[in-house]
Amino acid sequence: MMIDQRRLPGEYSIISLETPEAVAEAIRDMAVRGAPAIGASAAFGLALTAARSSAQSSADLWEDLTAADRVLRAARPTAVNLGWALDRMLNRARAHSAQEPDALRNFLRDEAQRIADEDVETNRQMGSYGSGLIQSGDTVIHHCNTGALATVDYGTALGVIRAAHEQGKAVHVLVDETRPRLQGARLTAWELEQYGIKYEIIADNAAGSFLRAGTVASVLVGADRIAANGDVANKIGTYMLALAANDNRVPFYVVAPTSTIDLSLPSGDQIPIEDRSTSEVLNLQVDGQPIAPATSRARNPAFDVTPHRLVSAIVTENGILRPPYEIALSHAVQGARKQWTSS
Amino acid sequence: MMIDQRRLPGEYSIISLETPEAVAEAIRDMAVRGAPAIGASAAFGLALTAARSSAQSSADLWEDLTAADRVLRAARPTAVNLGWALDRMLNRARAHSAQEPDALRNFLRDEAQRIADEDVETNRQMGSYGSGLIQSGDTVIHHCNTGALATVDYGTALGVIRAAHEQGKAVHVLVDETRPRLQGARLTAWELEQYGIKYEIIADNAAGSFLRAGTVASVLVGADRIAANGDVANKIGTYMLALAANDNRVPFYVVAPTSTIDLSLPSGDQIPIEDRSTSEVLNLQVDGQPIAPATSRARNPAFDVTPHRLVSAIVTENGILRPPYEIALSHAVQGARKQWTSS
Repeated sequence: MMIDQRRLPGEYSIISLETPEAVAEAIRDMAVRGAPAIGASAAFGLALTAARSSAQSSADLWEDLTAADRVLRAARPTAVNLGWALDRMLNRARAHSAQEPDALRNFLRDEAQRIADEDVETNRQMGSYGSGLIQSGDTVIHHCNTGALATVDYGTALGVIRAAHEQGKAVHVLVDETRPRLQGARLTAWELEQYGIKYEIIADNAAGSFLRAGTVASVLVGADRIAANGDVANKIGTYMLALAANDNRVPFYVVAPTSTIDLSLPSGDQIPIEDRSTSEVLNLQVDGQPIAPATSRARNPAFDVTPHRLVSAIVTENGILRPPYEIALSHAVQGARKQWTSS
Repeated sequence: MMIDQRRLPGEYSIISLETPEAVAEAIRDMAVRGAPAIGASAAFGLALTAARSSAQSSADLWEDLTAADRVLRAARPTAVNLGWALDRMLNRARAHSAQEPDALRNFLRDEAQRIADEDVETNRQMGSYGSGLIQSGDTVIHHCNTGALATVDYGTALGVIRAAHEQGKAVHVLVDETRPRLQGARLTAWELEQYGIKYEIIADNAAGSFLRAGTVASVLVGADRIAANGDVANKIGTYMLALAANDNRVPFYVVAPTSTIDLSLPSGDQIPIEDRSTSEVLNLQVDGQPIAPATSRARNPAFDVTPHRLVSAIVTENGILRPPYEIALSHAVQGARKQWTSS
């Protein structure tokens, strides 16, 4: 069961998903979105597959899992957390593959829950580290949605803002509306209302004017995939925001768990970027009228890559990383792996 | 009479304005927008005032004109063409202020028409100069609307694109939708449809990813005011677009008549920036649903300033200006003044 994010902020509704195909469709259609939330959802998609499979042997069950893994993995290409969670589920399950199918079912259910629980813990840890970067009285710019909705709970970049707020710091958030899907206006504003954090929504293209005015202390964003050199794939618009921060010497912070780091890719140039339906750009209305001629075409890349030279720091659950990122990211991932082994 | 741009692209309708207050309101509410179009509209607002005034003496007529000038001048603060056109109307009318009121009425009507006619000529001249900057096969990014709708006819930045197209060059335009008022999606797309120029609409925040991909030959924008040092005030989002062009060594061209140049301001820091109603940010709907919580606040600066260091060239009717801009702009304005005197 998950919140149907497509209906917010107008309606808070819960959808039930019973098959890996339904989970994949929910990810594809963005009923659930946000890299960590996608990862946990995919893990539960595998656990669900196991629970509902009629397989009598572990070998048969494994076949069902492999098929489900293929469906889930293909749902969206950019966020590496999707593949990360599926890899973790299957790699660890392999150690149990000689056991009875029910033992494998139980293990997968528990492992999905561990991924979910650890995500919340990870976010709180990032909040704890990252909140030190925020001073009381700061105005910060935030892009897309990186809160409880984008994760299992608490959030990444928005988690840092929440942590600062919970420590009693006065924070004011300029919320990028985040075209085309408007996750900022629709979801981040909705979350900030509930946390009692002050905010104002801005058009994405206005961020530069606020940065140039000298009133913004820092910019905080999440990530969908971080390459070995520190290049960051994140929601479309992140790159232009980073340029504007850099041009005005305002710190640009990426907040992401180590599960978002993909050391197999040397740079951001190798990160696959999803092109989504152009209806997302064209389906806006103002006063009930469509915003573009009916015959218009559009382009809709859903993510962009921000070169590491524009990133002031990367906040992970294993600490705040500073350039040069190759070494820092590799250490952070190793630290995370050690934690998993001991859990 | 003018096209009501608020109703495009859904409806092509003409409104009739009979008082300077109505003209000012049309400018304020953006029934007409675009710096050159605002200037010509204000000029006709003064001519209209004179035509409808019941003044029996030139002194009384002058009082009516002064009152109308105040109303029109206050309609919008950023585009200098508004004040430029009003100054030109009144300064030249002063030479006729000793004549009969009807002679003054006639002069103002003719002068407004001259401003309109010269604007079209100016735009064609900029198109002629600027089209040399476009090669057949180029993909260009265009922000806001700078076409026939934004001027008296033909356009500034869009005029350059039209001129290249009319010369038989294949041009492909990535149309920034231009939040919050969506002049790109609503107006530029509508114009390009009619000219048969290929285009695709993009979210403003996607421009950076196309620039980074290396497929964009140049970026073309208009201007609302250019300071003596070459800093350019233009529609919100221009600054971030210029940063993205600069970061990828893609030429960033500003296309504007010399009437947009304000040598009285040393830099862009002195240009007044209009804050518009936040309902422009919040009034979007997707599938009939509002995009933000009902209690949300917003910020809505309508323009930003692009520092001259990011501007590759400024195309005027007196030639293509390159840095250093202080000297080039001063020469261009003097050239324009000479033309006026001899006309």
